[in-house]
Amino acid sequence: MRGVVMYAPGDVRVEEREDAKIVEPTDAVIRVTASCICGSDLWPYRGVEALDGPTPMGHEYIGIVEQVGDDVRNIKVGDYVVGSFVASDNTCEICQAGYQSRCIHNVMMGSVGTQAELARIPLADGTLVATPGTPDEDLIPSLLAASDVLGTGWFAAVAAEAGPGKTVAVVGDGAVGLSAVLAAKQLGAERIIAFSRHPERQALAREFGATDIIEERGDAGAARVKELTGGYGAHGVVEAVGTEESMWQAIRSSRPGGYVGYVGVTHGVELNGLDLFFTGVHLHGGPAPVRRFLPELIQLIWDRTIDPGKVFDLTLPLDQAAEGYKAMDERRATKVLLTL
Amino acid sequence: MRGVVMYAPGDVRVEEREDAKIVEPTDAVIRVTASCICGSDLWPYRGVEALDGPTPMGHEYIGIVEQVGDDVRNIKVGDYVVGSFVASDNTCEICQAGYQSRCIHNVMMGSVGTQAELARIPLADGTLVATPGTPDEDLIPSLLAASDVLGTGWFAAVAAEAGPGKTVAVVGDGAVGLSAVLAAKQLGAERIIAFSRHPERQALAREFGATDIIEERGDAGAARVKELTGGYGAHGVVEAVGTEESMWQAIRSSRPGGYVGYVGVTHGVELNGLDLFFTGVHLHGGPAPVRRFLPELIQLIWDRTIDPGKVFDLTLPLDQAAEGYKAMDERRATKVLLTL
Repeated sequence: MRGVVMYAPGDVRVEEREDAKIVEPTDAVIRVTASCICGSDLWPYRGVEALDGPTPMGHEYIGIVEQVGDDVRNIKVGDYVVGSFVASDNTCEICQAGYQSRCIHNVMMGSVGTQAELARIPLADGTLVATPGTPDEDLIPSLLAASDVLGTGWFAAVAAEAGPGKTVAVVGDGAVGLSAVLAAKQLGAERIIAFSRHPERQALAREFGATDIIEERGDAGAARVKELTGGYGAHGVVEAVGTEESMWQAIRSSRPGGYVGYVGVTHGVELNGLDLFFTGVHLHGGPAPVRRFLPELIQLIWDRTIDPGKVFDLTLPLDQAAEGYKAMDERRATKVLLTL
Repeated sequence: MRGVVMYAPGDVRVEEREDAKIVEPTDAVIRVTASCICGSDLWPYRGVEALDGPTPMGHEYIGIVEQVGDDVRNIKVGDYVVGSFVASDNTCEICQAGYQSRCIHNVMMGSVGTQAELARIPLADGTLVATPGTPDEDLIPSLLAASDVLGTGWFAAVAAEAGPGKTVAVVGDGAVGLSAVLAAKQLGAERIIAFSRHPERQALAREFGATDIIEERGDAGAARVKELTGGYGAHGVVEAVGTEESMWQAIRSSRPGGYVGYVGVTHGVELNGLDLFFTGVHLHGGPAPVRRFLPELIQLIWDRTIDPGKVFDLTLPLDQAAEGYKAMDERRATKVLLTL
């Protein structure tokens, strides 16, 4: 099968890999119909995260089930499926509490590499959710978004306690941040403040439900949120970048007792305990338990209530994945969809 | 009036201070009937926190109202009152959301110095809660505990989501940690794991409701919690120390998606963002909004449902405050009550 392999920072190739196959009786193999490039794929691409030799890439996917292991009960060959970027059994106490991304048997899908024609999905019964049928072509980007960025933005908005009467600020105008704006709107937030300096991203944020845009960053940005909220700060804040500046921008944009949902994979961040102590915020985040939200998100997309696929602003065939990485790295694209 | 003043690390004196008086029309002046020494008073005593000249000490208090300012409406001269260690208006949005310790007009009572015969209480209407009458002598320690350590332990247990069916671990066997054990029990937790190496504190933890005691600390302690909870970790954890080791002990004792309530005033703690990210815990803490819980705590004490005053294991007259500081510093006492 054809698949994306990263050899070194900046060196992404599409080449022949060994076909995905059933390894464990709980596995499925899917024929991937669309995959995409994640902001987190840029960390090794930029050399911030080390690579351990040539590495198959990708952890987002939708596709059609080709094969199932002997112990798979709920997923059938021919099902059109969406899964999260973390495989989970969906039965352990952690999964049952809604934290499937930290399932006691979790498998990170990045270790599988879903930017490929076929993908092995561990713990298929727990991981995959079948769509109501074969989706119309125009629904594919949105269903693919549910696999990671939408699910992650949704989790962050839930962690930020977005809801009726609430003011929610969103730090980060990438695909996850924009998805969090959409989620906050859908969850009923009254006022949604998006931090962004990019005119096109500002426009999409507004389309997704942002009521205010702030261009300032860091403490100046947080001060603007306080100004807009009677001196108090937002009730909830989403952090979708993962730097020390963005973490504090989020924490300081929140009122005491407010909720900060952080989903940017944090790199080089050290949080001073005493500073954090006196903010009095609720801090919750980590790898999003996308599986918790998938049934609801698939239905909202199927009903055309939400259109999160708009975060994809570049679509390329799998063979041109290298150009996709380059476009995201150079910020010419927010999010790249790879067709198969 | 007589009052405690700290001159330098280890140098605590009781001397004549200017009588407390009404400064703002929202103030009250109370005649303090009991005060106490806080674990956080030991930070400057040990030289960990700098002193800015001779400093009046104390932020915990109960007493009788002697005088009220012209704008005080709800509190009357003669009321027997308990207040939190932070004065708050109890009307701003932050207070109304239950975060009175971060009230937009908050005044830290440490700036007043309540280890004294009289104390000025700012924002008296918002800060003070009257007891149902003059308390019996034996209720005084418990009512005083409500002013800080009980309220703080209670907040931490609430932040740790202690409740029916839950396993809660408590890091720290000082007065706050022990109060958190009592709170977790009262909130209905099924299993309460106390970390302690001190036989007397272990005994009081068990009396307050602890079902298990762990003597190991740090990662070894956290590993023991996982062993006791089927490999998952506790549903909620209270952190009541404030060191980097104790913070990670608490975080690592929690299951993913669990709740860590931290109330130890953090000193020299830097939390690595990436490590925190992958724990997936809810982290919430800070100066406890004791005022939120005071009416309920006073009633529980009045009805003799709880007896948190047991955390006081040394009672001294105000004039012997220096010996009280010394006893706590040398860990000969958990918590010292000062009589007036």
